[in-house]
Amino acid sequence: MPARFTLYYWPIPFRAQFARYILAHAGEAWDEPDVDALLVLYQAPIQGQPVPFMAPPVLHDAEADLWLSQAVAITSYLGERFGLMPGTPEKDALTRKVLGDCLDVLHGLTLNCGAAMWEDEGWAEFAEERLPRWLEIFEALGSRHGLQSDQGTLLGTDEPGVADLACAALWVTICDTLPELEELIAQHAPKVLALSRRIGALPTIAELRADQKQRWGNLWCEGQIEESLRSVLANWQR
Amino acid sequence: MPARFTLYYWPIPFRAQFARYILAHAGEAWDEPDVDALLVLYQAPIQGQPVPFMAPPVLHDAEADLWLSQAVAITSYLGERFGLMPGTPEKDALTRKVLGDCLDVLHGLTLNCGAAMWEDEGWAEFAEERLPRWLEIFEALGSRHGLQSDQGTLLGTDEPGVADLACAALWVTICDTLPELEELIAQHAPKVLALSRRIGALPTIAELRADQKQRWGNLWCEGQIEESLRSVLANWQR
Repeated sequence: MPARFTLYYWPIPFRAQFARYILAHAGEAWDEPDVDALLVLYQAPIQGQPVPFMAPPVLHDAEADLWLSQAVAITSYLGERFGLMPGTPEKDALTRKVLGDCLDVLHGLTLNCGAAMWEDEGWAEFAEERLPRWLEIFEALGSRHGLQSDQGTLLGTDEPGVADLACAALWVTICDTLPELEELIAQHAPKVLALSRRIGALPTIAELRADQKQRWGNLWCEGQIEESLRSVLANWQR
Repeated sequence: MPARFTLYYWPIPFRAQFARYILAHAGEAWDEPDVDALLVLYQAPIQGQPVPFMAPPVLHDAEADLWLSQAVAITSYLGERFGLMPGTPEKDALTRKVLGDCLDVLHGLTLNCGAAMWEDEGWAEFAEERLPRWLEIFEALGSRHGLQSDQGTLLGTDEPGVADLACAALWVTICDTLPELEELIAQHAPKVLALSRRIGALPTIAELRADQKQRWGNLWCEGQIEESLRSVLANWQR
């Protein structure tokens, strides 16, 4: 029987990782068609696409008859479906702020998905200023909502929610695939990293990670931009 | 008496325009502090920011004691507060897809907020391919949900919702400030442009537009990237 949810994305973590962590944590099986099936969707004339979209991920919820694009919309939708949103307007909004921040970090680390390539000088500046600032934003948001006392009301709540899963999908995946960055993350966002690691060690998520490791190795965003990122990381003197 | 909502942003339309259209349509007065007040927030150490954030817009809802960043989170939150979200998980998700698409168009038109500058050749390619594709995505999404028959269930519904207001905040603002693009928009997204114009002509929105026109003229995203965009638009042969 086909799964209720189908996720169309390139065979890499990157922007679909948030949806995958949520689906895995919810114990929901999902299909991920191969690249050929994705390309059929992606290259179809706009009028023929089941949801008109510019770039994957695309989610299909067969039960709700919904096709959806845009990572924040998808993640937020799955979170609601599985009861993983906080459930108050304020906390739901802050959860979507976290999702927006996560996506911005992906875009920052890839110079907007490869619009330019990394060079050592630009990387050094990013790694000394902007990336630490991002990490401090996550850490401060967590602390502001009780994470430092292990009584979090947004991150590190009793039951993992979308914000926790998104943090883990971002930072654990980076540690898994770009381990050169782990020390910097631990330095500027120790509590968020500890939380992310706890989430990453949950059986369902650990299984997803092991499966991805086996299939994709350390692939993160793929392409020339990943080559360029690995090249500056190799030269990087902290 | 201070307004319930305070919106911190540069004195330009761009990424805050979605929130402004919603606030105006909801008949809610809001404060927009001047650039000095924004800079105090923006340049504060992360720990001292009322919500840790990388870039404005930032919204303060005094009644809910909420500080929020990230345009999609803010817009979606305001939409919920004012009962302007569709109210079903599927339609709410598609509304957030529209918001994500709107932001992507802003980023596309500014080469990711000025990460690079426009040159004639790159612009011609964008204007011939990617921008028409974006417009067709909006148009097809509207049509898929009944916009073409004037019985829209997502865009062009009986009462304007967040998706309508977001479309208007994007396309009407572009027509208001970058009129060179209006013909292209009309060509590839005629129904969405007609809808956007209807929203833009509502008294509350028309008043906002007139006020912005008076204060900001045709300023759109400001800075070198706006100069660069205007320069390629001046040379552009359709």
